[in-house]
Amino acid sequence: METTKIDFLKTYLSLYIDHQTVMADAQQANPQYVILDVRNAPAKIKKDQIEGAIAMPAKDLANRLSELDQHKTYVVYDWTAGTTLGKVALLTLLSADFKAYELSCALEGWKGMHLPIESL
Amino acid sequence: METTKIDFLKTYLSLYIDHQTVMADAQQANPQYVILDVRNAPAKIKKDQIEGAIAMPAKDLANRLSELDQHKTYVVYDWTAGTTLGKVALLTLLSADFKAYELSCALEGWKGMHLPIESL
Amino acid sequence: METTKIDFLKTYLSLYIDHQTVMADAQQANPQYVILDVRNAPAKIKKDQIEGAIAMPAKDLANRLSELDQHKTYVVYDWTAGTTLGKVALLTLLSADFKAYELSCALEGWKGMHLPIESL
Repeated sequence: METTKIDFLKTYLSLYIDHQTVMADAQQANPQYVILDVRNAPAKIKKDQIEGAIAMPAKDLANRLSELDQHKTYVVYDWTAGTTLGKVALLTLLSADFKAYELSCALEGWKGMHLPIESL
Repeated sequence: METTKIDFLKTYLSLYIDHQTVMADAQQANPQYVILDVRNAPAKIKKDQIEGAIAMPAKDLANRLSELDQHKTYVVYDWTAGTTLGKVALLTLLSADFKAYELSCALEGWKGMHLPIESL
Repeated sequence: METTKIDFLKTYLSLYIDHQTVMADAQQANPQYVILDVRNAPAKIKKDQIEGAIAMPAKDLANRLSELDQHKTYVVYDWTAGTTLGKVALLTLLSADFKAYELSCALEGWKGMHLPIESL
């Protein structure tokens, strides 16, 4: 049973990337990660987003895959941790052979740690 | 490994239903979905709930299955996304051969989108 | 497919312990559970914690396993439900043969239910 739990946790955690990894990569000359804001909301509701993120609502993602680059790794986020929208986007990306992760802290945690945000 | 991630995501997401699907169904003459508020709290703490929901605390659910209809599909929700109470209720319902899903946005997301709420 | 969902839910829920179980144990003469606050934040950011918890940030956990007791069962928590930090800690503990669970309500839910907290 512990093996079952451990395997489950490993798979669950393999879906995520943490903010330290993303922040460290952003300092590089040629960053590997591209952040996608997959919230299904207009800018006036969202108000702000993670600095440098590309707005690509989960509901539009399947039709906008041609805008993405197979050589990049995508990091998706939703309002808070534990929601399903990031996982919906992740499934779309992985199924189309893109490299992708969900941001483990979500927007709420990113803001809570006072990491860079930009207004919309 | 990507196959493992994809299978994991598909199973995870198969547990959930989104608010659009539930709202569209509620407009029908004979709605298929019945919303169950499974929060383990008295009305004075809950204060309000999703419009038309039936209060059925997760702790009481196993003893109240006879009140449910095998021809309906149940949609359970807790305060916020990512908690376990909805999944506890879902396991009880699926194990008793009911059709059921967890509401992906939970009460917090439902309110955040200004969807219909009623006072308790 | 329902079997797949049920198995998934059982494994998912087997990772968690609820606050009632933890609170009831704390009343015993020789409590079985030890609560670990695994938030990666300094005391001035955390401000308070669950009463009696031991601060053991997830980032330090792998190097501090010698401080733990194989005869106890560890209960880890993060700020809110649905984050990954508790699962990171849980994976470390289970992989090192400790008995461990994640607190299902997280700190947010614990406070929401007005359960015992202490200032830092």
